[in-house]
Amino acid sequence: MTAALPLAVSLGDPAGIGPEVTAKCWQARAEMRLPPFVAVGDPRSISQVSDVPLVVVDDPEEAIEKFEQALPVLAIDAEALPPPGQPSNEGARCALHALELAVGLARSGSAGAVVTGPVSKSHLYHVGFTHPGQTEFIAERCGVASGNVAMMLAGPTLRCVPVTTHIPLSSVPSALSTDLIAARGRAALRGLIRNFGIENPRLAVSGLNPHAGENGELGHEDEEMIVPAVETLREEGWQVSGPHPADTMFHDAARQRYDAALAMYHDQALIPLKALHFDEGVNITLGLPIVRTSPDHGTAFDIAGTNRARPTAMGEAIHYAVNAATRRRDLAAQGRTGMAIGR
Amino acid sequence: MTAALPLAVSLGDPAGIGPEVTAKCWQARAEMRLPPFVAVGDPRSISQVSDVPLVVVDDPEEAIEKFEQALPVLAIDAEALPPPGQPSNEGARCALHALELAVGLARSGSAGAVVTGPVSKSHLYHVGFTHPGQTEFIAERCGVASGNVAMMLAGPTLRCVPVTTHIPLSSVPSALSTDLIAARGRAALRGLIRNFGIENPRLAVSGLNPHAGENGELGHEDEEMIVPAVETLREEGWQVSGPHPADTMFHDAARQRYDAALAMYHDQALIPLKALHFDEGVNITLGLPIVRTSPDHGTAFDIAGTNRARPTAMGEAIHYAVNAATRRRDLAAQGRTGMAIGR
Repeated sequence: MTAALPLAVSLGDPAGIGPEVTAKCWQARAEMRLPPFVAVGDPRSISQVSDVPLVVVDDPEEAIEKFEQALPVLAIDAEALPPPGQPSNEGARCALHALELAVGLARSGSAGAVVTGPVSKSHLYHVGFTHPGQTEFIAERCGVASGNVAMMLAGPTLRCVPVTTHIPLSSVPSALSTDLIAARGRAALRGLIRNFGIENPRLAVSGLNPHAGENGELGHEDEEMIVPAVETLREEGWQVSGPHPADTMFHDAARQRYDAALAMYHDQALIPLKALHFDEGVNITLGLPIVRTSPDHGTAFDIAGTNRARPTAMGEAIHYAVNAATRRRDLAAQGRTGMAIGR
Repeated sequence: MTAALPLAVSLGDPAGIGPEVTAKCWQARAEMRLPPFVAVGDPRSISQVSDVPLVVVDDPEEAIEKFEQALPVLAIDAEALPPPGQPSNEGARCALHALELAVGLARSGSAGAVVTGPVSKSHLYHVGFTHPGQTEFIAERCGVASGNVAMMLAGPTLRCVPVTTHIPLSSVPSALSTDLIAARGRAALRGLIRNFGIENPRLAVSGLNPHAGENGELGHEDEEMIVPAVETLREEGWQVSGPHPADTMFHDAARQRYDAALAMYHDQALIPLKALHFDEGVNITLGLPIVRTSPDHGTAFDIAGTNRARPTAMGEAIHYAVNAATRRRDLAAQGRTGMAIGR
């Protein structure tokens, strides 16, 4: 099954590897079994790194007809196109406009889902971007409080959701609260139902401190904030375990015991995900009215323009997006939202 | 080659899985190709979970003669022996005395190395233990400042050294300093020479914050403390890279680029190590005058006494110890200490 609507793929920073991996996905559309998608960004950022045929389209519907012949692009022209590997403020502005358009297409029902290419946060900050990352920006554009969305990183054998994301490590303990941990856990559990079709999802919650605090000897947050959050979710009827020592949660046998891990901070989630699934990781935003995924890699400016970027993660992101969009459409057709099944 | 002296294996907490995995190693001594070792601890803690033949010996030398017939034990009797899975203060005291004796044997030249079984830190704290872990205790007993030793976690494809270890996550940023990072890095690099025989070791240093601080946007420690530590080590002639974003350091291709990773805190080192090598991880203390290793697992009170503990990590810890001891003996025979080769 494929979604009836094309997916919108924002190219991300035009100087990063987003344009290249998107072009490579289109080239490999048959073997990767990818559904029709439309690229959103500067067409020149693709043609300077790839010789795939491009067709500039005016709306996503047109993309479906033309997808077999050429890579359809909704054009957002950068004021000055940066060469590959040389990020600029103009490039960051172009990336932001492409993101905005892609999200708008999904919100208005013109695109089935949004897949976002990698951006340079530091360059976005230079052009006045005030959100910690693309996820928070998209949440705001969708009118959802950022505490109620969750970023899930998914690979073939592991799904992780960090409670806090792009903040300094020293800010993590004070940014955590029982409410926030429970909210992210709830978003993760609902996402497992809505996006993955897991009817009775199991969530494993990590501790913050080494050994999950070793009974309070190595920090108090585990007992004071995380235990109550686990209890809250259990009282709501969810299957939740933890807090577990983070270092013993991610080996083969441990991963069999849950459908997603809730981690307390960025690297606690991303280290195991990328150690195990570096080329296949997908970032999925849970808790939004739209489906949004992205490949779990950065702009990789160091290899941009050298034809070395692998399209695996972008292809996986497109797969996850179309699967989640299809699942939601089916739930909607049954009159279910997936938001409160059995609860 | 084997070390001329037997290894001393402290059993750790008598209610944990230390006695069981030690007994299983002795049983499998032929297929695991283990050199002679002597267990140090309460012999009853072994006999209550295993039927291997035991022989109580008075000194390590005696252990070599008897090793083929029975598992030699230097007896440290607990005041009251705890049953498997039920830790007690008496058990913690017994574990501490066994650790002390085993370290003393290595220091005095009666044992070739020390391999330590897992202890319960929270129970040790109850009986007045004031060190963060066994490593710091052993450093003190060897007269080495704890900043100059380093805990290395090693598996078949990854070696990690955390700069800080058993402290709350909120204390990590303030516990880090350029001097401490450089000291641990130096201990790691010297250990790669002395214990592993790597003549020109490569060290990869992680960042503290997400994306190694994203050019200062996500925290300042990476630029202010870690960059200068990397520069200091480079000026001394070492091959050091970083700070790297911690989440992109541990996949297959990244691990080819270094001999050890220097991580800023416990879980940053232990999450990837245990995700990749859960049953095989060995803890090696670098910077000591003696060789000390331990299996990288805990007391596992939940499975103690059920015959389910795997001896793989303990066997690996014994292998690492005998290999490191042999390498040091060879270096000493050549009149080299391995402490300042080429520097």
